[in-house]
Amino acid sequence: MHVLIIGAGGMIGARLARLLARRGTLNGRPIGRMTLADITAPTAPKFSGSLDTLALDLAAPGAAPRLIADRPDVIFHLAAIVSSQAEADFDLGYATNLDGTRALLDAIRAADYCPRLVFASSTAVFGAPFPARIPDDFHATPRSSYGTQKAVTELLLNDHTRRGHVDAVALRLPTICIRPGRPNAAASGFYSNILREPLAGKPANLPVPDSTRHWFASPASAIAFFDHAATLDPDRIGPNRAINMPGLSATVADQIDALRRAAGQDAVDLITRIPDPAIAAIVNTWPQDFNTARAHDLGFTADTSFDTIIAAHISDNAD
Amino acid sequence: MHVLIIGAGGMIGARLARLLARRGTLNGRPIGRMTLADITAPTAPKFSGSLDTLALDLAAPGAAPRLIADRPDVIFHLAAIVSSQAEADFDLGYATNLDGTRALLDAIRAADYCPRLVFASSTAVFGAPFPARIPDDFHATPRSSYGTQKAVTELLLNDHTRRGHVDAVALRLPTICIRPGRPNAAASGFYSNILREPLAGKPANLPVPDSTRHWFASPASAIAFFDHAATLDPDRIGPNRAINMPGLSATVADQIDALRRAAGQDAVDLITRIPDPAIAAIVNTWPQDFNTARAHDLGFTADTSFDTIIAAHISDNAD
Repeated sequence: MHVLIIGAGGMIGARLARLLARRGTLNGRPIGRMTLADITAPTAPKFSGSLDTLALDLAAPGAAPRLIADRPDVIFHLAAIVSSQAEADFDLGYATNLDGTRALLDAIRAADYCPRLVFASSTAVFGAPFPARIPDDFHATPRSSYGTQKAVTELLLNDHTRRGHVDAVALRLPTICIRPGRPNAAASGFYSNILREPLAGKPANLPVPDSTRHWFASPASAIAFFDHAATLDPDRIGPNRAINMPGLSATVADQIDALRRAAGQDAVDLITRIPDPAIAAIVNTWPQDFNTARAHDLGFTADTSFDTIIAAHISDNAD
Repeated sequence: MHVLIIGAGGMIGARLARLLARRGTLNGRPIGRMTLADITAPTAPKFSGSLDTLALDLAAPGAAPRLIADRPDVIFHLAAIVSSQAEADFDLGYATNLDGTRALLDAIRAADYCPRLVFASSTAVFGAPFPARIPDDFHATPRSSYGTQKAVTELLLNDHTRRGHVDAVALRLPTICIRPGRPNAAASGFYSNILREPLAGKPANLPVPDSTRHWFASPASAIAFFDHAATLDPDRIGPNRAINMPGLSATVADQIDALRRAAGQDAVDLITRIPDPAIAAIVNTWPQDFNTARAHDLGFTADTSFDTIIAAHISDNAD
């Protein structure tokens, strides 16, 4: 089996590549070949089979046909211009997040085969106002260009799947927490910062009230979603290939309580509370909770507490 | 005021053009100029102001900038490859229904002004399974390429509106009934055929059971939706510019009862009943009823019975 990961240099893509390379199988079948692509060449994990790393821009002429030329059996597509950049640069966001994916679909259709394609979508397809708990059949009314590009891609994946051009699954990912790495300026960054930084003995600021509720998945859960999505029976998924992933609905207070249990009050005391009304205004337009009955029926499973999320983060960092 | 109608040769576009030309105002303001465009030059209605008719393909290079060059104040966009053709020719459907509209949005953005754009969308954005009565926040999961292209366009209109590039409204139209003209091969054609043909003393076949329920608007209601949409206060519409239009939920039996009241049992006896399982299968995947609270709040009004729909059809044909 030949596995292609587009966006293999990103947080989730790189971890997924390491998992598959280490395990050497997908859906119980041996992986003989992996192709890892990103805008700069991804790091190659240790792998017993054939492995190529490619630096390319999916939206550039010829890039998509090149990726599809050898007809990879399973394609994970996680490449994207991130939300803030897609908002800052309208044309770049559409060129990469919409036209790049259209080029990929056109290349697959031209190659006349039907691979499983697992696409990283996002709860950014949803826009306020919401019910307290968003059901599986709630409409997608994004409030960002990034969310629009994800929602449009989902519709295209459904139509190409219905036509038999591809066998796609789009995963609407919760906010990933605890994000590894350094604090970033994303509006959602504080959700990870207030755990990761104190766990490393460093200060972090909380810009919103402790009562703020949000929808989370750990990096390990996100990797498991992609891995599981590659194995799903098409008939069980049905014609709507966009699936709300399960997650953990938690408040900032829940996060801080778990931090206290894991690392004590000293760690909690590293959190400063300088309110940022601009961030609070953005965060208030984000989903807080979902009823993900459909994902559960399909065998996706969620994190159950911030205690396990923190424990997994500590274990990852001890590697 | 300069009004542009794209798709002014179609059933709704042509009637809308005649209404505006006759009345000479839109939203209480005088119309000084009308531009009517379609793939072949539309018929020019009598109009006291300046009127141009244009034959062009919106998806052709240069067509959209040409339409926008004189900055029309209100744009009605009804041009589309129809459902059956978009299904038969994948590339043509996307080129016209998606890329053509994108070219229009790009041209408006490049012209750096913010016209009201009223777009003809469709309940084809919805796909089974449905609740018995579809609410305003139900997800769009189209089961056709045409429905996909409409749903994608709605998302693009919302994002361009949010960005201030345009002030768009997308109207999700019910099935139009009674369609004027000759019987056609569309799967939905029989809904009009079984009324229009017997009213003209001609036979028509009913391929589905009398209990089949569907969602209708008369041609006059559809014109009124476009006319009203041009007048809406942007702040009242909110960020989601796609609106389920109100309609009449009725069974085939309701239609036939109204036909009997209007034209007697002799007219009803012109309906033959040769079942067509292929058509029944398609029709069973279509919406039957909607709760259109949002449209009602915004001042859109629906037909109240097939009696009035038939009376209006008879009156139209007497003109």
